[in-house]
Amino acid sequence: MTDFAATRDAFRLPEGITYLDGNSLGPMPRHAADRVAAMMRDQWSEMLITGWNRAGWYVQPRRVGDRIARLIGAGEGQVVMGDTLSIKVFQALSAALRLRPGRRVILSDSGNFPSDLYVAQGLAETVGAELRVVAPEDVAAHTTPDLAVLMLTEVDYRTGRRHDMAALTAAAHEAGALAVWDLAHSAGAVDVDLLGTGADFAVGCTYKYLNGGPGAPAFIWVHPDHAEAARPCLQGWMGHVQPFAFDAAYAPAPGIERMRVGTPPVIALAALDAALVIWEGVDMATLRARSIELSEAFIAGVEAACPELTLHSPRDPARRGSQVGFRHPQAYAVMQALIAEGVVGDFRAPDVLRFGFAPLYNDMEDVDRAVAVLAGILRRGLWDRPEHHRRAAVT
Amino acid sequence: MTDFAATRDAFRLPEGITYLDGNSLGPMPRHAADRVAAMMRDQWSEMLITGWNRAGWYVQPRRVGDRIARLIGAGEGQVVMGDTLSIKVFQALSAALRLRPGRRVILSDSGNFPSDLYVAQGLAETVGAELRVVAPEDVAAHTTPDLAVLMLTEVDYRTGRRHDMAALTAAAHEAGALAVWDLAHSAGAVDVDLLGTGADFAVGCTYKYLNGGPGAPAFIWVHPDHAEAARPCLQGWMGHVQPFAFDAAYAPAPGIERMRVGTPPVIALAALDAALVIWEGVDMATLRARSIELSEAFIAGVEAACPELTLHSPRDPARRGSQVGFRHPQAYAVMQALIAEGVVGDFRAPDVLRFGFAPLYNDMEDVDRAVAVLAGILRRGLWDRPEHHRRAAVT
Repeated sequence: MTDFAATRDAFRLPEGITYLDGNSLGPMPRHAADRVAAMMRDQWSEMLITGWNRAGWYVQPRRVGDRIARLIGAGEGQVVMGDTLSIKVFQALSAALRLRPGRRVILSDSGNFPSDLYVAQGLAETVGAELRVVAPEDVAAHTTPDLAVLMLTEVDYRTGRRHDMAALTAAAHEAGALAVWDLAHSAGAVDVDLLGTGADFAVGCTYKYLNGGPGAPAFIWVHPDHAEAARPCLQGWMGHVQPFAFDAAYAPAPGIERMRVGTPPVIALAALDAALVIWEGVDMATLRARSIELSEAFIAGVEAACPELTLHSPRDPARRGSQVGFRHPQAYAVMQALIAEGVVGDFRAPDVLRFGFAPLYNDMEDVDRAVAVLAGILRRGLWDRPEHHRRAAVT
Repeated sequence: MTDFAATRDAFRLPEGITYLDGNSLGPMPRHAADRVAAMMRDQWSEMLITGWNRAGWYVQPRRVGDRIARLIGAGEGQVVMGDTLSIKVFQALSAALRLRPGRRVILSDSGNFPSDLYVAQGLAETVGAELRVVAPEDVAAHTTPDLAVLMLTEVDYRTGRRHDMAALTAAAHEAGALAVWDLAHSAGAVDVDLLGTGADFAVGCTYKYLNGGPGAPAFIWVHPDHAEAARPCLQGWMGHVQPFAFDAAYAPAPGIERMRVGTPPVIALAALDAALVIWEGVDMATLRARSIELSEAFIAGVEAACPELTLHSPRDPARRGSQVGFRHPQAYAVMQALIAEGVVGDFRAPDVLRFGFAPLYNDMEDVDRAVAVLAGILRRGLWDRPEHHRRAAVT
């Protein structure tokens, strides 16, 4: 039985804040700072270099990966941590391309996160591939026989629209292509079944619904059918079959280990590990049901109380992740006014108010308060103050 | 005036340990754990997503980079942090290659760190370039007119041999090539003058002499002459000219910012920043003089007391970094015996005992104790016990 009162209590949320931005940055687990400081004192400071063996730093990227594997329908020993999501997208994409020699087309959609498209553009330019970008609803129709790789983010970062991973993966396979899935807005948010859908590669970040902290390490998964064949273009010593033999020639480690690149971020992994402990015992189907319950209540509440907002997310919860977007011509200022009153969502250009629902710590009280505050701001025009129009570097 | 008593006191070293392995992993600064925990509580936990602006997380990679710039002879605003060293090698190398269209040869040497060679092999395979690896002493003779990029690590990770950065960069330029320097064993260890030597790209890690903690973020520097022309093959959103406009097409940010890739590792950067504070007021010429003094005393002491060891480093201190290697047929077991007696250096295959001297916290007492313990172990054959022959995963 998933105990959401206990998981909510595991987080430290500032007094008076209704936090609906876990889809951008998850909040700090209550014990995370102590855990990290203790690791630094007991391991780094006391063990020094011997921490690589004695404290298990060397095997940590896969040990932490195993915690995530369960949440995304992957098997033990199939997920490894490291780098950032953009780097992992590059790795997955370049490895997938190489598994389809003779084909040079990468297909993605305009709802993909821009960084994924930038990475694909950079790789395509470098290796002479072609990146085709179509509208999200047109992806299936474009899985043509010249396709090498279908690269999609399952849940759209602006609209929350959720792709049908099984159907699109099947369409890619039908065309003889491989499917690379970005789970940035899926891992810890919805029930993902990588092995069940037959996906080929998956990558994701851990600072959103997994609460690993700002800039927490990314993860990568490779289907066992490809794990021994996939060649990482980014060949680092930690992915070598014998890193400490210091051979002059690269030879990939078995399985997912080859997707490691450089020295793992031990301190950041300690923070992430502390956050993943909270997921022990959480059932993903129960989590998904609660996510839908919260999102549906929010949509119903906003539509009843705020007629000037337009739903920017699919109405069918089965086609939505764990976030809801509403459009407003002055969305930036409206979000600043909301934040000033303690309801934290975020803004995505050009006109989207984005609210994430993280069942691990959000509850129906959060939904009710957010609806009430949002309605009040719009009714009283509180967003139209100079301080709410000023743009910061990061939105 | 550089106050080495004060800098030594800034570190927390375990009781009874003589630490000569800062060339592998620097020790923890005394205040680092508190600083990181405070950042997590005051910034991540309290500010949540607003920390990107309010706590300056977004500009942190360059702010921290500026602290390092001073230590390596680079200018303000020319260094940016992120990823791991292997990733930064890939970025520098791919950008340099692209600045020399029509040329496809990368020259490196067999003394380079294997991960740099693995990265170059992966890139060369991907883009159809050729990697030539020659002996360190033959590099100058191989800067031929077909060369695109000379890629070297300034200080050899096993021998401590230091390349002449100015002369080899000039030779590369003479051949019409660019020079990429890896400063892994240079930054914080020797006096580096990037702008003075005319180097084109430089990269380095921060967990060795800079004491940023296990897996701390790497840095990259691009000479201002190339900064606006260099195209990063790894194109991430943080290197985009307007990351929060979420444009579909990549356009590089001005200058070094384009070498950013994904979301920066905020927690790890806090640990690193805490370590870099100690460098304020440290004069690099004074540091270099002290490094030579310690290394010379160690070599003289070992050669007098341990005739069975062979110096594996250049005898001329001007041609050496801040580490000293000695060879012994049973180097692995000898190092385990040393560690068991509290003198921590490390082993590098096949037969090298490696000792790093970090003037920030090592002093002449460390040298004397290390020599005495090493001599005792060899004299009494203490290394030849079963427990000292057992190999761990990380050496």
